[in-house]
Amino acid sequence: MPLPKKEKPRLAVSARELVAFNIRRLRTQRGWQQELLSYEAGLHRTMVGHLEHSRRNVTVDTLEAIAGALQVELHELLLPIEQQ
Amino acid sequence: MPLPKKEKPRLAVSARELVAFNIRRLRTQRGWQQELLSYEAGLHRTMVGHLEHSRRNVTVDTLEAIAGALQVELHELLLPIEQQ
Repeated sequence: MPLPKKEKPRLAVSARELVAFNIRRLRTQRGWQQELLSYEAGLHRTMVGHLEHSRRNVTVDTLEAIAGALQVELHELLLPIEQQ
Repeated sequence: MPLPKKEKPRLAVSARELVAFNIRRLRTQRGWQQELLSYEAGLHRTMVGHLEHSRRNVTVDTLEAIAGALQVELHELLLPIEQQ
Protein backbone atom coordinates (compact mmCIF):
# COMPACT_ATOMS: atom_id res chain seq x y z
CA MET A 1 0.00 0.00 0.00
CA PRO A 2 1.67 3.33 -1.07
CA LEU A 3 2.44 5.85 1.70
CA PRO A 4 -0.15 8.66 2.02
CA LYS A 5 1.07 11.79 0.11
CA LYS A 6 2.66 14.32 2.50
CA GLU A 7 1.87 18.05 2.55
CA LYS A 8 4.81 20.21 1.30
CA PRO A 9 6.51 21.86 4.33
CA ARG A 10 6.19 25.69 4.19
CA LEU A 11 8.63 28.26 5.62
CA ALA A 12 7.42 31.20 7.79
CA VAL A 13 8.48 33.62 5.01
CA SER A 14 7.89 31.95 1.65
CA ALA A 15 10.73 31.30 -0.76
CA ARG A 16 9.10 33.63 -3.28
CA GLU A 17 9.02 36.43 -0.69
CA LEU A 18 12.71 35.88 0.14
CA VAL A 19 13.61 36.07 -3.56
CA ALA A 20 11.54 39.25 -3.94
CA PHE A 21 13.11 40.89 -0.89
CA ASN A 22 16.72 40.01 -1.81
CA ILE A 23 16.48 40.96 -5.49
CA ARG A 24 14.99 44.35 -4.58
CA ARG A 25 17.65 44.88 -1.87
CA LEU A 26 20.59 44.02 -4.16
CA ARG A 27 19.17 45.91 -7.15
CA THR A 28 18.47 49.14 -5.26
CA GLN A 29 21.91 48.97 -3.62
CA ARG A 30 23.28 49.34 -7.19
CA GLY A 31 20.79 52.05 -8.09
CA TRP A 32 19.45 49.92 -10.95
CA GLN A 33 15.92 50.04 -12.38
CA GLN A 34 14.01 46.75 -12.70
CA GLU A 35 14.22 46.88 -16.54
CA LEU A 36 18.02 47.29 -16.45
CA LEU A 37 18.44 44.23 -14.21
CA SER A 38 16.07 42.25 -16.46
CA TYR A 39 18.15 43.28 -19.47
CA GLU A 40 21.52 42.55 -17.83
CA ALA A 41 20.23 39.10 -16.83
CA GLY A 42 19.01 38.37 -20.37
CA LEU A 43 15.38 38.17 -19.17
CA HIS A 44 12.08 39.60 -20.40
CA ARG A 45 11.77 43.28 -19.55
CA THR A 46 9.04 42.70 -16.92
CA MET A 47 10.48 39.59 -15.22
CA VAL A 48 12.25 41.40 -12.36
CA GLY A 49 9.07 43.31 -11.61
CA HIS A 50 7.12 40.06 -11.37
CA LEU A 51 9.79 38.48 -9.14
CA GLU A 52 9.85 41.47 -6.79
CA HIS A 53 6.09 41.00 -6.30
CA SER A 54 6.44 37.26 -5.61
CA ARG A 55 4.33 36.53 -8.70
CA ARG A 56 6.59 33.84 -10.17
CA ASN A 57 7.74 30.40 -9.06
CA VAL A 58 11.21 31.28 -10.30
CA THR A 59 13.70 28.60 -11.42
CA VAL A 60 17.35 28.24 -10.47
CA ASP A 61 18.45 29.00 -14.05
CA THR A 62 16.72 32.39 -13.79
CA LEU A 63 18.18 32.97 -10.31
CA GLU A 64 21.61 32.12 -11.76
CA ALA A 65 21.17 34.76 -14.49
CA ILE A 66 20.11 37.39 -11.93
CA ALA A 67 22.98 36.54 -9.54
CA GLY A 68 25.39 36.77 -12.50
CA ALA A 69 24.02 40.17 -13.54
CA LEU A 70 24.25 41.47 -9.95
CA GLN A 71 27.66 39.77 -9.54
CA VAL A 72 26.66 38.16 -6.24
CA GLU A 73 26.77 34.56 -5.00
CA LEU A 74 23.63 32.59 -5.85
CA HIS A 75 22.66 31.96 -2.21
CA GLU A 76 22.55 35.72 -1.52
CA LEU A 77 19.23 35.78 -3.42
CA LEU A 78 17.72 33.49 -0.76
CA LEU A 79 19.20 34.88 2.49
CA PRO A 80 16.77 35.13 5.43
CA ILE A 81 15.53 38.69 5.88
CA GLU A 82 17.24 39.19 9.27
CA GLN A 83 20.63 38.03 7.91
CA GLN A 84 21.22 41.15 5.76
CA MET B 1 15.19 50.57 -31.67
CA PRO B 2 15.05 47.81 -28.97
CA LEU B 3 18.32 46.91 -27.20
CA PRO B 4 20.00 43.72 -28.54
CA LYS B 5 19.08 40.71 -26.31
CA LYS B 6 21.85 39.92 -23.80
CA GLU B 7 23.29 36.45 -23.13
CA LYS B 8 22.35 35.11 -19.66
CA PRO B 9 25.39 35.38 -17.34
CA ARG B 10 26.58 31.90 -16.21
CA LEU B 11 28.35 31.04 -12.94
CA ALA B 12 31.54 28.87 -12.88
CA VAL B 13 29.58 26.09 -11.12
CA SER B 14 26.01 26.09 -12.43
CA ALA B 15 23.06 26.69 -10.12
CA ARG B 16 21.78 23.17 -10.85
CA GLU B 17 25.14 21.69 -9.79
CA LEU B 18 25.09 23.71 -6.54
CA VAL B 19 21.57 22.47 -5.78
CA ALA B 20 22.62 18.88 -6.52
CA PHE B 21 25.73 19.13 -4.33
CA ASN B 22 23.96 20.74 -1.36
CA ILE B 23 20.91 18.45 -1.36
CA ARG B 24 23.14 15.37 -1.46
CA ARG B 25 25.37 16.80 1.31
CA LEU B 26 22.45 17.67 3.64
CA ARG B 27 20.56 14.45 2.90
CA THR B 28 23.50 12.12 3.52
CA GLN B 29 24.37 14.02 6.71
CA ARG B 30 20.98 12.83 7.97
CA GLY B 31 21.47 9.31 6.65
CA TRP B 32 18.32 9.65 4.51
CA GLN B 33 17.64 7.84 1.24
CA GLN B 34 16.57 9.92 -1.78
CA GLU B 35 13.04 8.46 -1.68
CA LEU B 36 12.59 9.41 2.00
CA LEU B 37 13.57 13.03 1.33
CA SER B 38 11.24 13.13 -1.70
CA TYR B 39 8.43 11.79 0.50
CA GLU B 40 9.12 14.16 3.43
CA ALA B 41 9.14 17.09 0.96
CA GLY B 42 5.82 15.99 -0.56
CA LEU B 43 7.48 15.40 -3.96
CA HIS B 44 7.41 12.62 -6.54
CA ARG B 45 9.47 9.63 -5.41
CA THR B 46 12.18 10.21 -8.05
CA MET B 47 12.47 14.01 -7.82
CA VAL B 48 15.41 14.11 -5.40
CA GLY B 49 17.31 11.66 -7.59
CA HIS B 50 16.77 13.93 -10.60
CA LEU B 51 17.84 17.01 -8.63
CA GLU B 52 21.01 15.33 -7.37
CA HIS B 53 21.97 14.66 -11.01
CA SER B 54 21.29 18.28 -12.07
CA ARG B 55 18.55 17.05 -14.41
CA ARG B 56 15.91 19.58 -13.36
CA ASN B 57 15.59 23.37 -13.54
CA VAL B 58 14.13 23.31 -10.05
CA THR B 59 11.78 26.03 -8.79
CA VAL B 60 11.91 27.92 -5.50
CA ASP B 61 8.66 26.29 -4.33
CA THR B 62 10.32 22.87 -4.67
CA LEU B 63 13.49 24.15 -2.96
CA GLU B 64 11.27 25.48 -0.15
CA ALA B 65 9.69 22.04 0.32
CA ILE B 66 13.13 20.35 0.42
CA ALA B 67 14.56 22.94 2.85
CA GLY B 68 11.50 22.44 5.04
CA ALA B 69 11.88 18.66 5.01
CA LEU B 70 15.61 18.94 5.85
CA GLN B 71 14.84 21.71 8.38
CA VAL B 72 17.53 24.00 6.97
CA GLU B 73 17.46 27.61 5.80
CA LEU B 74 16.56 27.96 2.12
CA HIS B 75 19.89 29.56 1.14
CA GLU B 76 21.78 26.51 2.47
CA LEU B 77 20.63 24.66 -0.65
CA LEU B 78 22.59 27.12 -2.82
CA LEU B 79 25.81 27.62 -0.81
CA PRO B 80 29.04 27.69 -2.84
CA ILE B 81 30.85 24.37 -2.64
CA GLU B 82 33.88 25.77 -0.77
CA GLN B 83 31.63 27.37 1.91
CA GLN B 84 30.61 24.07 3.52
